[in-house]
Amino acid sequence: MAGRQDPGRHGLAAALTGDADLRVWSVIITIFGDAVAPRGGVVAVSVLAALTAPLGIGAGALRVALHRLVRDGWLIRERRGRASFYALSPRGVAEFAPASRRIYAAAPAAGAPLALGLADPGLDAGARAGLEARMSGAGWQPVGAGVWLGPAAAVPAPGVFTLAGTGGEVPGWLRARLGPPELSAAYAALVAELRQLAAALDGDGGGPGRSDGATAAALRVLVVHRWRRLVLRHADLPAAYLPGDWPGETCRDLVLALHRRLSAAADPWLDAEIAPRRQPLAK
Amino acid sequence: MAGRQDPGRHGLAAALTGDADLRVWSVIITIFGDAVAPRGGVVAVSVLAALTAPLGIGAGALRVALHRLVRDGWLIRERRGRASFYALSPRGVAEFAPASRRIYAAAPAAGAPLALGLADPGLDAGARAGLEARMSGAGWQPVGAGVWLGPAAAVPAPGVFTLAGTGGEVPGWLRARLGPPELSAAYAALVAELRQLAAALDGDGGGPGRSDGATAAALRVLVVHRWRRLVLRHADLPAAYLPGDWPGETCRDLVLALHRRLSAAADPWLDAEIAPRRQPLAK
Repeated sequence: MAGRQDPGRHGLAAALTGDADLRVWSVIITIFGDAVAPRGGVVAVSVLAALTAPLGIGAGALRVALHRLVRDGWLIRERRGRASFYALSPRGVAEFAPASRRIYAAAPAAGAPLALGLADPGLDAGARAGLEARMSGAGWQPVGAGVWLGPAAAVPAPGVFTLAGTGGEVPGWLRARLGPPELSAAYAALVAELRQLAAALDGDGGGPGRSDGATAAALRVLVVHRWRRLVLRHADLPAAYLPGDWPGETCRDLVLALHRRLSAAADPWLDAEIAPRRQPLAK
Repeated sequence: MAGRQDPGRHGLAAALTGDADLRVWSVIITIFGDAVAPRGGVVAVSVLAALTAPLGIGAGALRVALHRLVRDGWLIRERRGRASFYALSPRGVAEFAPASRRIYAAAPAAGAPLALGLADPGLDAGARAGLEARMSGAGWQPVGAGVWLGPAAAVPAPGVFTLAGTGGEVPGWLRARLGPPELSAAYAALVAELRQLAAALDGDGGGPGRSDGATAAALRVLVVHRWRRLVLRHADLPAAYLPGDWPGETCRDLVLALHRRLSAAADPWLDAEIAPRRQPLAK
């Protein structure tokens, strides 16, 4: 497009403008996955600011979130002269790389074997809650009290018995549990917003041009971020495990199409801003 | 042995002498599996009486149990002249044949794939109780609320989701649940009784001779019956799924050894008593 494009005007940014620190924290993780990791993993704070400002994230909120991410061990910071650079820590890489694979996958893991995980029914509530958090973090989805379904490759919490293999026919009650109405509604809402964005890009003559790479990159972060926050809320399951009217795959197709479309302008800008500083940070 | 051998004196018959109709009913099923089915499936009531009398089952209790088995559709009865003959009905064959395979198996289904079955956690108590009975009857063993473990070949109740494949490491809590202390104790008690029987047979110069085939056959029924009542109380699982000190396999080895030993006298007698009347009964 010729002029500046305000990502906020597509409504996609609305979910970010609550301005909770955690949201900014989470957007920065999306940026590392979408733009920084593929380019050597090191980024200047000025580039992060250029990507977050169009999303309504101010310099102060960015600074606070970066500080927090360094303090909690997810990012490493290094000053070079007057500039600050950030990289994912080894722990951050280990934590976020598997999520990236899911976020950018062209389809759900249709052929991959699944597993059921089973906790000791005799556990007390406290132990059970700890297990729930741990299993959920490892990609498992609860399907009953102390029972989870997940990819066979997902690591279970200690003491959880797993059985990996092939599922039989998936009854309706299980589909409804794995793809609950509120998540389905959230996907449907995002589908509508993404279609609106695609239409707006059409109206702008195809979207941000090469001259507006930062806006394209910020829009791309926004699209990926919204998708990421839904897709990581449930296990990576074949369509047979979800309700018949599940909008998740329509959403995925729109996300990937928009990603390709915005990349034409975003990638050259990101290559110029990030690639030259590819040296790894000292630990 | 030279003289008559009273099965009751080995203590094995004690569990049968409560004389509940159901016990007799159940012993007759054992007889059909152990002695009748391999010989064409048809047996005269006089042979049944010869096999049950040494176990302390009187003619009246036998008659009542046979009547009940015919009424409930498990057996078919036919009179030929003054003699009554009995055969398993097609339904009886369908119901009891899979159990026979397990009873006489030389080892647990070690290499066979297992499955977890999962019921809708939203079911009410009545529906859940119905499922429990149905899953248990189909060879599944409960391992949590609405969760069962069983052979992959076991048929699940409608609405139960199953996943068949390979289990991971089996935690202690699951082994204890699959092989509970009371069942372990029952196996250990049977092991002691079977060793006593083996010792008594040794003392009798090797057990019933060819001249006492009926006693040998009755003793064999007793051994199989006691084993059957334990082995069918739990799913057919590899040793890795049971506690380290599980006595079930020691018991199996003793049962099979005694079965072979008693067969030397029992089989010729049974062949003579059952084989000649091999014609199938009309339905």
